[in-house]
Amino acid sequence: MQGNPQTAAPFLRNVPESLAVARARPLVQDLPTENIAELAVRAREIGDVIPLWYGEGDLVTPPFIRDAAKAALDAGRTFYEPNMRGAPGLTEALAAYQTRLHGREIARERSTVTPGGMQALALAFQLVLEPGHNIVYVEPQWPNIANLIHLSGGEGRPVPLALRDGDWRLDLDAVARACDARTRAIVFSTPANPTGWTASREDLAALLAFGRERGVWIVSDEVYNRLYWAGPSAPSILEIAEPEDLVLSINSFSKAWAMTGWRIGWLTHPASVAPHLAAMTQYVNSGVSPFVQAGAEAAIRDGEDLVETMRERCRRGVDLAYAALDRLPDVRLPAKPRGGMYVFFALESEPDSTAACRRVLEAARVGLAPGALFGASARPYLRMCVARDPDQLQTALDRLVVALGG
Amino acid sequence: MQGNPQTAAPFLRNVPESLAVARARPLVQDLPTENIAELAVRAREIGDVIPLWYGEGDLVTPPFIRDAAKAALDAGRTFYEPNMRGAPGLTEALAAYQTRLHGREIARERSTVTPGGMQALALAFQLVLEPGHNIVYVEPQWPNIANLIHLSGGEGRPVPLALRDGDWRLDLDAVARACDARTRAIVFSTPANPTGWTASREDLAALLAFGRERGVWIVSDEVYNRLYWAGPSAPSILEIAEPEDLVLSINSFSKAWAMTGWRIGWLTHPASVAPHLAAMTQYVNSGVSPFVQAGAEAAIRDGEDLVETMRERCRRGVDLAYAALDRLPDVRLPAKPRGGMYVFFALESEPDSTAACRRVLEAARVGLAPGALFGASARPYLRMCVARDPDQLQTALDRLVVALGG
Repeated sequence: MQGNPQTAAPFLRNVPESLAVARARPLVQDLPTENIAELAVRAREIGDVIPLWYGEGDLVTPPFIRDAAKAALDAGRTFYEPNMRGAPGLTEALAAYQTRLHGREIARERSTVTPGGMQALALAFQLVLEPGHNIVYVEPQWPNIANLIHLSGGEGRPVPLALRDGDWRLDLDAVARACDARTRAIVFSTPANPTGWTASREDLAALLAFGRERGVWIVSDEVYNRLYWAGPSAPSILEIAEPEDLVLSINSFSKAWAMTGWRIGWLTHPASVAPHLAAMTQYVNSGVSPFVQAGAEAAIRDGEDLVETMRERCRRGVDLAYAALDRLPDVRLPAKPRGGMYVFFALESEPDSTAACRRVLEAARVGLAPGALFGASARPYLRMCVARDPDQLQTALDRLVVALGG
Repeated sequence: MQGNPQTAAPFLRNVPESLAVARARPLVQDLPTENIAELAVRAREIGDVIPLWYGEGDLVTPPFIRDAAKAALDAGRTFYEPNMRGAPGLTEALAAYQTRLHGREIARERSTVTPGGMQALALAFQLVLEPGHNIVYVEPQWPNIANLIHLSGGEGRPVPLALRDGDWRLDLDAVARACDARTRAIVFSTPANPTGWTASREDLAALLAFGRERGVWIVSDEVYNRLYWAGPSAPSILEIAEPEDLVLSINSFSKAWAMTGWRIGWLTHPASVAPHLAAMTQYVNSGVSPFVQAGAEAAIRDGEDLVETMRERCRRGVDLAYAALDRLPDVRLPAKPRGGMYVFFALESEPDSTAACRRVLEAARVGLAPGALFGASARPYLRMCVARDPDQLQTALDRLVVALGG
């Protein structure tokens, strides 16, 4: 190779448009690049659409959290946080919070702060998943999990929930049957996005026992665990796991603290892998902004009223949606979710959820997410986010009732 | 599997301490988990140590950037940014900035905003690197690159720079010889961390031509490209690459805009892979905080005076360091770097850089980073960050001169 621009010149023309794509990894080329983008484009044309398709509430992060971040900015906290796994104030607050919430000591070194719950999941998979191995996960499931497994070079093995007596149920034997010698983890979200299915303590104990017996990680996505009606938290694997169990819990400030745009979450893990997570954090994201962590620390220390507000908003949203949808003959509505921020229903007259979403968008000017995104077993369903202003949600529901012929 | 806590009970005891580590991926277990931590612990015992080991300046991010972030927080920009690849204001500013700086149009869809330069590199490798394939990189090199290649399941192939007439030189033929059919990318940083080696336009043209001929990606880490003495930017691959060339440029707000703690960077790429990067962003990190992006937008729009300040601080730091070190007989000092924020030198009397760093720490109370971290060819060297207050830096240098027997 010569360091001579003349030799380079012949190559400077005619670079084929497709070469860069062709030289991207096949795994990356396979990733679905569309989700509700097409619907969103149409929504902008229609105008006045009430967007219930995203997994996001409509409340701005409250002032006490924003003020904490601003104070950190004012104090000049604009340097690398020396401990990349989390600022001392935040990891201490997370330890106290999780210990209190789950009724057993969760030591500080067991939490790693991440740039968002998504990155917590990415680190979890990077920690445990070999290319060519598989992850068993409960479906319907938010699409990011299956796509991240694929991107990680693993095989995703969905185990569908079944509707029994109108209630989503997990068949634990089906989970066991889906596992083999190449299974590295069992993944679920509880309360689940999109179904609201919530693992019982018995489910969790059985999954934990199975994981121990087989040396399989249990990865519990607990991003919605505070948005639960029957107690301060949905049952958590952290309540029953020993510190060194093969258990990873994913969490985020996004949903329960109205902080989607802050991009901060955390991973709870055995202390023994903390050094590995420190190395991975350095080599993958190099940590989270100290002023964002200051906001999160305020949220976790002083945010119980906020969590209560978010929980009540979701619960009320579910009630409003069920009151409206339950009387529509065309709507198949499972039992009320025990938590989360979604209502998940199907139209008897339209089993193709993408077509159903288009119809709802055109006829009711309401944006819903098609179940097809959440796995094959979710194809007929539509997801509605109810973490909204009740008046706006009621308007959306009134429109739906008219459009769906109630 | 039974959903019965009794069957789980026998497993609830005696979880071996080591199981979680054993079930982490071997690749992860191999990652070095120590860097300068041991030295930093000793530094705290000694006290009054001047820390020149981190790649970070000592200036708090200026008010105009912090104010922009605070204004965004006040305006309620606390939701997901709809375009996860970057807020429109920031990607527009990046397009204008890069077009101006590099003298050729760099369209807006070619930039993807990332949570830090490290994550830009992680996405770049995830885009192009298959497990079992290799990446050729220029050494000495900051350790994150080799470690990330390893974590990605790839093989890292270092090509050492050679000191010729006191100057670091890249042997382009050695780069070519290191490549084979399984090579997916050639990676370098320019100006380089830690050597300050800077690719010439001829080097870049030759690398680009080679990449085109072989279908190999050129990944140019340009995080220090504004910290360059002979012009507004070090020569950049973006000046000569066609839009659809197999070229990825890594950048970050950390160094030139004094924003290490903000965790924001960007990746410049062919427009054709933008949909893939959109999907990867969604499934890996789900984007960057809108108020952090607001700060970055202010930095890129109004930050030229700041960049000039940072550049002058580094240049002056290099000059001060060379004035002090050049007269020490025990110090082997390459020619002055053309850019970057480091001075990289060796002690003739101590070829083990970790031992040398310990000696300097004890005798001079100055913290330096051992070259061993930057690859086998860098083993005798010590890295000093000079992006500091000149008075503090001079104090450190005075101590070094005394300690090293000047």
